[in-house]
Amino acid sequence: MEIVSENRSFGGTQGVYRHASETCGCDMTFAVYLPPQAKVGPVPVLWYLSGLTCTHENAMTKGGFQEHAAKHGLAVVFPDTSPRGEGVANDEAYDLGQGAGFYVNAKRDPWKPHYRMYDYVVSELRGIVSGMDGIGDRHGITGHSMGGHGALTIAMRNPELYDSLSAFAPIAHPTQSDWGRKQLSAYLGDDEGCWAEHDSTLLLEEHGWKSDILVDQGASDQFLDLLKPEALAAAIAKRRQPGTVRMQAGYDHSYFFVNSFAGDHVAWHAERLK
Amino acid sequence: MEIVSENRSFGGTQGVYRHASETCGCDMTFAVYLPPQAKVGPVPVLWYLSGLTCTHENAMTKGGFQEHAAKHGLAVVFPDTSPRGEGVANDEAYDLGQGAGFYVNAKRDPWKPHYRMYDYVVSELRGIVSGMDGIGDRHGITGHSMGGHGALTIAMRNPELYDSLSAFAPIAHPTQSDWGRKQLSAYLGDDEGCWAEHDSTLLLEEHGWKSDILVDQGASDQFLDLLKPEALAAAIAKRRQPGTVRMQAGYDHSYFFVNSFAGDHVAWHAERLK
Repeated sequence: MEIVSENRSFGGTQGVYRHASETCGCDMTFAVYLPPQAKVGPVPVLWYLSGLTCTHENAMTKGGFQEHAAKHGLAVVFPDTSPRGEGVANDEAYDLGQGAGFYVNAKRDPWKPHYRMYDYVVSELRGIVSGMDGIGDRHGITGHSMGGHGALTIAMRNPELYDSLSAFAPIAHPTQSDWGRKQLSAYLGDDEGCWAEHDSTLLLEEHGWKSDILVDQGASDQFLDLLKPEALAAAIAKRRQPGTVRMQAGYDHSYFFVNSFAGDHVAWHAERLK
Repeated sequence: MEIVSENRSFGGTQGVYRHASETCGCDMTFAVYLPPQAKVGPVPVLWYLSGLTCTHENAMTKGGFQEHAAKHGLAVVFPDTSPRGEGVANDEAYDLGQGAGFYVNAKRDPWKPHYRMYDYVVSELRGIVSGMDGIGDRHGITGHSMGGHGALTIAMRNPELYDSLSAFAPIAHPTQSDWGRKQLSAYLGDDEGCWAEHDSTLLLEEHGWKSDILVDQGASDQFLDLLKPEALAAAIAKRRQPGTVRMQAGYDHSYFFVNSFAGDHVAWHAERLK
């Protein structure tokens, strides 16, 4: 594993690393923030999955997670959002291909050989991160937009692997949204029955989540029609799922929204992971 | 004045604005964070001057100032670092021309017509910002690297305009550094007597500052030889200037350093501006 960079941050270390991924068949870059507490002993880990067009870098530089993670003694992992590189299939659209892996394992060409972000996050990268000094065995997961979709679906399908769950403005019902139908069709094929396990509203209706969930959504988000928070909110209420859904007045879809509530989410996860 | 963007952030508003600058003879872009307290009444203002290659955007997105400014009820202004545009002189080097105004008024061609960042910050932009709703009449100033140089020199030359002063890894002695001699020569000419008023170490030796100063410097900064914090630290000690100079173990020159200590600086200014 190659160290791309390591910077001191709030008494801990913000690292960026590159490795040859077996799962994705290409080099993958990811970031890990290790809080100062990790020098003394293993700390819990919060996974942050990013949205469309992002790399490992966006939330690392603009999310403001480090200060809160240092305060609460959590590590934070920032994976990339897709495989990348010259040999990796791509599309001209911003919402398909590189930067838009949607946290699924593709079953169709040209995506099938590399687009395996579900397995990459759940298995390969988890193994690598778990082997790093200072990383403990309790994991929480969150994410923004496409990454909120990833966090919710990955956690609900793997409740034994995650002990806390939240999301920022998640793509909440992708089987019924243009942020979802296009990508699930391209990556998984036209059999919509295969899509349900990648739709957090449907997963919640069917399985729920073992603990409570925190969801923040900007009430002035420019993508509300695509995100469909009303579907997830209704499913949570209908199932009597413990949790909190907050419509935040005036906030949009940007990182100004994410970092305004990053502290609340880190504190939420820290309380449940300790 | 054109509104480029306005985003809700920590209950306040992060705005970006563009205007035709008389001082610089070109369009200029700047950012202002207004905390929630500004809806109730005027709040003090902290100016943050950025470093080489930066625009208004770097500290706005990576500095993490909004959370602390919202907590303490300060507005924060992020000016650009130079005039810009097709008709504006430039240089291929990253440290001269656009992105490298050095907070001086140029006296030599080709820089003279537009490179007037000293007057722009001290006068024109101050007037514009002072006219905005919610902005009070107490001003503090800080900055990073070239912007730390700007903050220190501008404040010491205009103590009647600023009531609090700090800096992150400032270019502390530009008349004796390759970050300084090249630019002061290009913008001001070869008469080094004219350079002294743009050197914070020399200004501090000569005039001091009316109150106390906070300076943070990463002890692992990759540019220590160019920044020369030892010159400023010696001048502060020699003059018995009230202040605090902190060499921060392990920190480099990046925004991971700046945002790790942004909270301390905002609190420092808030205490002195209220």
